Amino acid sequence: MMIRKLSAEALGTAFLLIGVVGSGIMGETLAGGNVAIALLANAIATGCILYVIILTLGPISGAHFNPAVTLAFLIRKEITPGLAAAYVAVQIAAGLLGVWAAHLMFDLPIWQFSTTARTGPALWASELIATFGLLLVIFGGLKARPDAVPVLVALYITGAYWFTASTSFANPAVTIARGLSDTFAGINPAHIPAYILVQILAVLVAAIVLPRLLDD
Amino acid sequence: MMIRKLSAEALGTAFLLIGVVGSGIMGETLAGGNVAIALLANAIATGCILYVIILTLGPISGAHFNPAVTLAFLIRKEITPGLAAAYVAVQIAAGLLGVWAAHLMFDLPIWQFSTTARTGPALWASELIATFGLLLVIFGGLKARPDAVPVLVALYITGAYWFTASTSFANPAVTIARGLSDTFAGINPAHIPAYILVQILAVLVAAIVLPRLLDD
Amino acid sequence: MMIRKLSAEALGTAFLLIGVVGSGIMGETLAGGNVAIALLANAIATGCILYVIILTLGPISGAHFNPAVTLAFLIRKEITPGLAAAYVAVQIAAGLLGVWAAHLMFDLPIWQFSTTARTGPALWASELIATFGLLLVIFGGLKARPDAVPVLVALYITGAYWFTASTSFANPAVTIARGLSDTFAGINPAHIPAYILVQILAVLVAAIVLPRLLDD
Amino acid sequence: MMIRKLSAEALGTAFLLIGVVGSGIMGETLAGGNVAIALLANAIATGCILYVIILTLGPISGAHFNPAVTLAFLIRKEITPGLAAAYVAVQIAAGLLGVWAAHLMFDLPIWQFSTTARTGPALWASELIATFGLLLVIFGGLKARPDAVPVLVALYITGAYWFTASTSFANPAVTIARGLSDTFAGINPAHIPAYILVQILAVLVAAIVLPRLLDD
Repeated sequence: MMIRKLSAEALGTAFLLIGVVGSGIMGETLAGGNVAIALLANAIATGCILYVIILTLGPISGAHFNPAVTLAFLIRKEITPGLAAAYVAVQIAAGLLGVWAAHLMFDLPIWQFSTTARTGPALWASELIATFGLLLVIFGGLKARPDAVPVLVALYITGAYWFTASTSFANPAVTIARGLSDTFAGINPAHIPAYILVQILAVLVAAIVLPRLLDD
Repeated sequence: MMIRKLSAEALGTAFLLIGVVGSGIMGETLAGGNVAIALLANAIATGCILYVIILTLGPISGAHFNPAVTLAFLIRKEITPGLAAAYVAVQIAAGLLGVWAAHLMFDLPIWQFSTTARTGPALWASELIATFGLLLVIFGGLKARPDAVPVLVALYITGAYWFTASTSFANPAVTIARGLSDTFAGINPAHIPAYILVQILAVLVAAIVLPRLLDD
Repeated sequence: MMIRKLSAEALGTAFLLIGVVGSGIMGETLAGGNVAIALLANAIATGCILYVIILTLGPISGAHFNPAVTLAFLIRKEITPGLAAAYVAVQIAAGLLGVWAAHLMFDLPIWQFSTTARTGPALWASELIATFGLLLVIFGGLKARPDAVPVLVALYITGAYWFTASTSFANPAVTIARGLSDTFAGINPAHIPAYILVQILAVLVAAIVLPRLLDD
Repeated sequence: MMIRKLSAEALGTAFLLIGVVGSGIMGETLAGGNVAIALLANAIATGCILYVIILTLGPISGAHFNPAVTLAFLIRKEITPGLAAAYVAVQIAAGLLGVWAAHLMFDLPIWQFSTTARTGPALWASELIATFGLLLVIFGGLKARPDAVPVLVALYITGAYWFTASTSFANPAVTIARGLSDTFAGINPAHIPAYILVQILAVLVAAIVLPRLLDD
């Protein structure tokens, strides 16, 4: 059972990164400098893949695909520390595999490091709001209508690509993996730690605020 | 319970304005003068955030996020005058906070006033039709299939961005908040009162027409 | 009851034309010559309005908004000839009102005739396939999952804007109304009769084929 | 009953190819060289038609429309070899009819061969991942929530147009049919066999992996 859960987390996170990085490469290649169209395709494709992996793999592993989400469940004591640690390790490893699969499909060098600067207080504020919003959507959705969670997360992230300045990474495993792709979705590895710190901070804020709001 | 309701209205309205104003800034920045792509992203992101806030916060506060909607429920005696007044006050205040959060994320001056002219009979007719349509969708949806209201409102507004000349503000709190952002979604504060007047007029028209049509 | 049914058909058809013609005007105005973006916005906005009017008004009138659909129900003896005639009259009249409301909102002359040529065997074949597909979707959906009909029709038309050369009018009331708008969505009135003839032909083909396929 | 099943497969596959090829022609014609917008319209229109044909024809034939899917059901012994062979024959024939219908609607020569090169290990890797993902989505969806399969397949393919380098053919009947259209969606017939081989390989991989993961 544990193997199935970890396999589901691995497969889902790998497909998530294929979705994010692959559609970014395709969008930038085809858009001929019109970044808005590239980002629109990137946002729609990411929403599509999120919907399908959460719905199909949710019954097996809970469909976290995100260490911030796993941490939030851990704080709520809805996952054991051991399983949570295994989830996070698998998410990070599978995220890298997903990025490399995207490079393979688009005939790019497998091993890359991003040179895209993503840093500064404005972007950190973006990630704080983006990650808090994601947790609101997940835990609010689980309470209001659990079967709507796949579409909730998909639409939230599709929108948040546009309404946060950082395009909403909101996921430490995704952030790390995007550090290894010098393409549209990339982030300079030096700027990753601050992103992850802010994402974890958002989990802590949500752990205090959401139970009161949602009356859990 | 009252605190939870007001918190939900605040959080939802703030996220709504983050969605509207933030995606407008991102769209205009990336689209390089192609306003159609900026508006498309703006419309899709607004639909996305509407869906998630209505679905997740609806069970707590009813998910009005809009003084016109609160007024419509007041006329139907489905909310007390005291709670309605508190809702409207919170919606307006939280709308401003949402705009400022968007400015913060996009590294813009927090305090701004829009210089975008949005006035004249054609736009007022647009807001009248837009707001009436929104109320038709909400109250028709509540009667036909209540669980579809989040997607109904989201798709209605996404479409109405395009089929009304005003891009469908249809919400006095949103209108006021957009007055304080000199970005894509802004409206010159001098033009706000007429918009709100027409939005209230639409509520009155709907209060007469809809009960007969929907057989409430 | 009859008054409510006809009011629902009127309101829905008027909003449908507002959606089609209004978003066409907005799209063409903003897209700066990039017709593909205008059509994308037009298709998405039309899908959005179709979903909301079918879902909210369906329980009242059946949400035909289309003489071809009313004719199909008449052939199946699921509507009386008298009511069908009243539906068609109201759909045509309300379609015109919708076009004029769009012109009013966009500050254009109310009274216009289109000069856009839409004629020839290729476009007639398009309308034949488009209308047949619409009836397949409606009657197949009513049999497979009736509550999915609003989203089925919305997505079918959004797609058919792109995969038929005529952009799928598939509706005689819409066709007539678009004759009175010299904007993006217009059709030269001289080319309307052939469109309607083909749309009716598709209803007859569907009346023969669909019952066998769907085992009604 | 057999006739109805085969008719449903034929009608659905023909409409699928109309959707893919027709929207490709429309997109390329209108986008004026901006391939990203053409592909966005192509992806959205394909998702739309997939949703409607799977939902409406699913109860009749199972809505395969894809020899790879039929093969996967055959391996699971959920379809007899005779019916599977008939399905595949009908899918291939109807795919061609769909392409020709698209050419007819867009006033192009009916009989064409594509000259678009689509070959090489990167694209083959794309088709392998694309087809495996499609089967994960179908069989995972059938287990997790069968009524979500139409939207799962539609969104998966809409996304996969962008996140795989091949734009996700993932269907031997579609691949063959696209060989006969020298338009946006075309593929040089010489490059078809390798695509089909990889698609079949993905079925075999999925037949080994998915039962373990999904605990069938």
